[in-house]
Amino acid sequence: MFDTFKKNIRSYLSFSDDDLSFFISQLEVRPLLKNEKWLRAGDVCRHVAYVNQGLLRYYLPVADKEHILDFFPENTWVSEYASFLHAKPSMVTIEAVEDTELFLLSYTAVQKAYERGAVFERFGRKMAEKLFVEAVDLNYIRQSKSVETRYQELVAEWPGLADRLPLKYIASYLGIEPESLSRIRKRLTGR
Amino acid sequence: MFDTFKKNIRSYLSFSDDDLSFFISQLEVRPLLKNEKWLRAGDVCRHVAYVNQGLLRYYLPVADKEHILDFFPENTWVSEYASFLHAKPSMVTIEAVEDTELFLLSYTAVQKAYERGAVFERFGRKMAEKLFVEAVDLNYIRQSKSVETRYQELVAEWPGLADRLPLKYIASYLGIEPESLSRIRKRLTGR
Repeated sequence: MFDTFKKNIRSYLSFSDDDLSFFISQLEVRPLLKNEKWLRAGDVCRHVAYVNQGLLRYYLPVADKEHILDFFPENTWVSEYASFLHAKPSMVTIEAVEDTELFLLSYTAVQKAYERGAVFERFGRKMAEKLFVEAVDLNYIRQSKSVETRYQELVAEWPGLADRLPLKYIASYLGIEPESLSRIRKRLTGR
Repeated sequence: MFDTFKKNIRSYLSFSDDDLSFFISQLEVRPLLKNEKWLRAGDVCRHVAYVNQGLLRYYLPVADKEHILDFFPENTWVSEYASFLHAKPSMVTIEAVEDTELFLLSYTAVQKAYERGAVFERFGRKMAEKLFVEAVDLNYIRQSKSVETRYQELVAEWPGLADRLPLKYIASYLGIEPESLSRIRKRLTGR
């Protein structure tokens, strides 16, 4: 049950079997049904989550629209981390696109891990560094790349993901209308 | 010489005198003249820097323009952190607006500090968390706040800073022409 999880966290750094057992002992398993919300904008995000199975979308509710910022398939970590760190209201809603299984770590569990010493501190540091680099990249990418390029990069980064997502979700992620995305797809296939 | 530096890093967490002495032993002092560049876009950022005195601007060179993303006055930390972490070319240029004094920590010094154990790992984690939250905030702020609000917040966050910056730098930070900023300033003063 925890094989891909173990592999995932050992990709950040090497944990002893002891530390790994401790880590796993802190997890709570949370199943989500398709379209179920894990976090609502306005609530405080109390956990970080490892996506063991399934797929989530991460979106900003703006007026009567949803602006999708990111997708989280299996074997990724997800959280509204600023809300988690400072117990402030979440800006985003996080919702299951498919039936999903999360492994949750509460804020208390995370602090307990840090108290165990340097290896967990280092893990937390590497996670925060990764999130930071992604946030900055997102900034630059949205400012500097064409919609077509961003679509191709999404498809390349997560093979198969585009087939698991409704067209309207991908369009929202790209900031365009579904009709425009259909045209882009046709153009790319026609090449 | 290191009083405000000590105070600054102890605001993140409590360091023993020993750890603090080690930290300070790793610093290099780097003076910069007004308008001198500390980092050029395209070069790899090899240090993180504490601004002991002076003021820096942090900008994206785009075609024949400069788009200022942030300012760093005394008692702040500055780096192109994604470039620093992954030894990749910097997206931004960092340049002194006034005569400035930096305390530098090299990548090697930072890794050495992490090897000392949990307290430095924790410091690194807190720095990365702070940077992440700021990057996300910047994203939301630029998407959701008016230019007028952003100007007022800049002035409120850094009292006196607006008087130390040429009008054109503040306008570039806000993404408007200097003439528009003059009008906003007049409107705000006239209230």
